Amino acid sequence: MRKVTFRVANSLDNYIARKDGSFDWIQQSEESSASLAGFWKTIDTVLWGRKTYDLVKGRMPTFQGVKNYVLSRTLKESADKEVELVNEDAAEFVHTLKSQKGRDIFVMGGGKLAKSLFEADLIDEVGMNIHPVFLGSGIALFHEMKRQINLELIECQTFRDGCVFVSYRVKS
Amino acid sequence: MRKVTFRVANSLDNYIARKDGSFDWIQQSEESSASLAGFWKTIDTVLWGRKTYDLVKGRMPTFQGVKNYVLSRTLKESADKEVELVNEDAAEFVHTLKSQKGRDIFVMGGGKLAKSLFEADLIDEVGMNIHPVFLGSGIALFHEMKRQINLELIECQTFRDGCVFVSYRVKS
Repeated sequence: MRKVTFRVANSLDNYIARKDGSFDWIQQSEESSASLAGFWKTIDTVLWGRKTYDLVKGRMPTFQGVKNYVLSRTLKESADKEVELVNEDAAEFVHTLKSQKGRDIFVMGGGKLAKSLFEADLIDEVGMNIHPVFLGSGIALFHEMKRQINLELIECQTFRDGCVFVSYRVKS
Repeated sequence: MRKVTFRVANSLDNYIARKDGSFDWIQQSEESSASLAGFWKTIDTVLWGRKTYDLVKGRMPTFQGVKNYVLSRTLKESADKEVELVNEDAAEFVHTLKSQKGRDIFVMGGGKLAKSLFEADLIDEVGMNIHPVFLGSGIALFHEMKRQINLELIECQTFRDGCVFVSYRVKS
């Protein structure tokens, strides 16, 4: 079974972007790049929430060398040939994807997609690069969920720039 | 000038209590107790938000050997002789308190009190004992703030029970 990991950069007050969608506050460092590079080697599929995709589109390229899916019930067509639109139920789609052959799967935000996958017990691991800032306002990382989800700490790494990377296994 | 520290236990999705106010999910360990014991030695004053005080009252004792203030604009009288009610503006009160002689000051939640003190640039340090759980819903730790607050990581400590204690200096 392929592992599904939800991995994000967030502020300490749990925003993933400013209200206008900008993420200028996200720090790039050799340490965070190295951590991410190790992760990239394990995956071949990226799942985008539609809102995250809209936000990121034009600000950074979609990822090369992996299969990019954008999950949306409303979007019927994408101008971006690098991505494949998925209109079916996210949980059903990911459930099928997990049982197929391949490397692991990266859920690239946002909060709404993660919520539906967490609730369906389809996420195996969570990685958060917690930035040393209170943004004060912005786009929330987490949305209310139907149930509590218990986690097991896998790793906690402190970067020289003050970021703390934590990763957890989801207890099912 | 006395240092003001906002210190809490939170879930990874940034709740400080369940919707009904319960905090049964907060883990007690030798490591977290030792960390807290070291902190207690540095303070002589505890500031409670009114809602936090209401929540905690009856579930645990107010702290002994320190001065307990409950900040509220609405509450006019407290049955609890261990605490002193403060009706004046929280920021003005804490501003005065900081310039008085004494040990450091502990802001014991909640999010609303912290918000007003952060916005008034009166909090010097933040400590969060991040628990390995998504509660899914509950009483939020953070409320929207008027401005961004930059932080400097002081310490990151991993406990055997999966909690991660992070502390930050507020950059003013």
